[in-house]
Amino acid sequence: MAGKVYLIGAGPGDPDLLTVRALRLLQSAELVVHDRLVSPEIMALVPATARCIPVGKAAGFHSVPQDRINEILVELAREGHSVIRLKGGDPLIFGRGSEEAEALAAAGIPYSYIPGITAAQGASASTGVPLTHRGLATGVRYVTGHRAKDATLDLHWESLADPDTTLVVYMGAGNMAEIAARLIAAGMPVDLPVLAVSHATTPRETRLLSDLTQIGADLARAPMEAPVLFMIGRVAGLYETAALPLPRELRSAHLRVVSNG
Amino acid sequence: MAGKVYLIGAGPGDPDLLTVRALRLLQSAELVVHDRLVSPEIMALVPATARCIPVGKAAGFHSVPQDRINEILVELAREGHSVIRLKGGDPLIFGRGSEEAEALAAAGIPYSYIPGITAAQGASASTGVPLTHRGLATGVRYVTGHRAKDATLDLHWESLADPDTTLVVYMGAGNMAEIAARLIAAGMPVDLPVLAVSHATTPRETRLLSDLTQIGADLARAPMEAPVLFMIGRVAGLYETAALPLPRELRSAHLRVVSNG
Repeated sequence: MAGKVYLIGAGPGDPDLLTVRALRLLQSAELVVHDRLVSPEIMALVPATARCIPVGKAAGFHSVPQDRINEILVELAREGHSVIRLKGGDPLIFGRGSEEAEALAAAGIPYSYIPGITAAQGASASTGVPLTHRGLATGVRYVTGHRAKDATLDLHWESLADPDTTLVVYMGAGNMAEIAARLIAAGMPVDLPVLAVSHATTPRETRLLSDLTQIGADLARAPMEAPVLFMIGRVAGLYETAALPLPRELRSAHLRVVSNG
Repeated sequence: MAGKVYLIGAGPGDPDLLTVRALRLLQSAELVVHDRLVSPEIMALVPATARCIPVGKAAGFHSVPQDRINEILVELAREGHSVIRLKGGDPLIFGRGSEEAEALAAAGIPYSYIPGITAAQGASASTGVPLTHRGLATGVRYVTGHRAKDATLDLHWESLADPDTTLVVYMGAGNMAEIAARLIAAGMPVDLPVLAVSHATTPRETRLLSDLTQIGADLARAPMEAPVLFMIGRVAGLYETAALPLPRELRSAHLRVVSNG
């Protein structure tokens, strides 16, 4: 009899931000198929007796193609295993969880989703910069700034250039200078604040406060380690007054990076 | 000495979708200031000895004005209490958590945020309809469909009419016919799928599959109980094939509502 596959969001990195259901499933796991971006603090919760299979997505490249990941999940479930498929963030927001679910459904294998706090929410709670705020942002939008090799960025710039909506860019560190320039060309204010957050909610969190005009140069001077999330919008301007502190041991790094903004 | 205020997201309703940190704080709470929309299943986790203060936001109206909520939090913290401020979803997505934080910061009271699974993620995981999916949605956007009495809907229709982005409308049940009509006028396909989900992730979850042309009439025929979330976009078209089942006891209600779609 085929096992079941649990498509689980690991959240942004802090194990305390796992959902209760995700933690329970992880702690009783026998077999974990995980993205490399899942934080070491969360992987440490997996029982030592469990078999762990890393399937890539480290710093922007896929070491195992998605089709092969789908096959691995189907094969393991057909062997009767209960499979924990652990992804950073939320499996249904840029997580390709629904592609894996399609393969499982086609093979007649049961599955369920356990949502996770997505990086935008983690960075928001950690930094104190809200995703919506009365008078500053009536909504929020998530896009990816990643592009396939040699491809152009496939984003609708006119639609994105809405200063009343907080724009969160995932996987955009390599293309942020171009993204910022295109947003300005589409009508966004040149001084619209941008807060970049690396490793949000983990002990490795760093932050860079900048604006649309400067963010490209700032990142060139002070590169940030992936994963980096960009919060673009008036809400990021609250960072100067509403910022929540980083853990003490990282304060100096934080100030160094922010001083480039 | 002033106490600390914890601005906590309760998530979409299922207690298993609380974060680990939120659960721990709730279970040791002495004083809870909560929105009425927080599910009874989650309120049941609060110790019987804790004092609970409901502050409204029941079905779209604020029984306690936001300014007064801010004052209550400041007063309780000044009395030395550790205060759990519990909100549905995520405090930083349509939760006005950052307005409360501003009041606390102005009064010199320490606070922190604990993010929560937002309703869109809960509905996505529960129904199986992803928020992004290769070839169907490159990003996702959250807006509110609520409007102040006698006011017009303040949304940028041209910007919203992007069929490559999943559009999630919170608090829009009362205005969905107008929202759908305006999206069509701005260029969205008339047959763009819409999945409405009420009480997502709770035992009271119901669903209605429709499209932009029909959703207004469908809701008029089969009103759904607040809170209702709308997932608008090609991803909602996956519901017919990828739908995850509701708990058995609700299956017939589910089918009845879906049959109106």
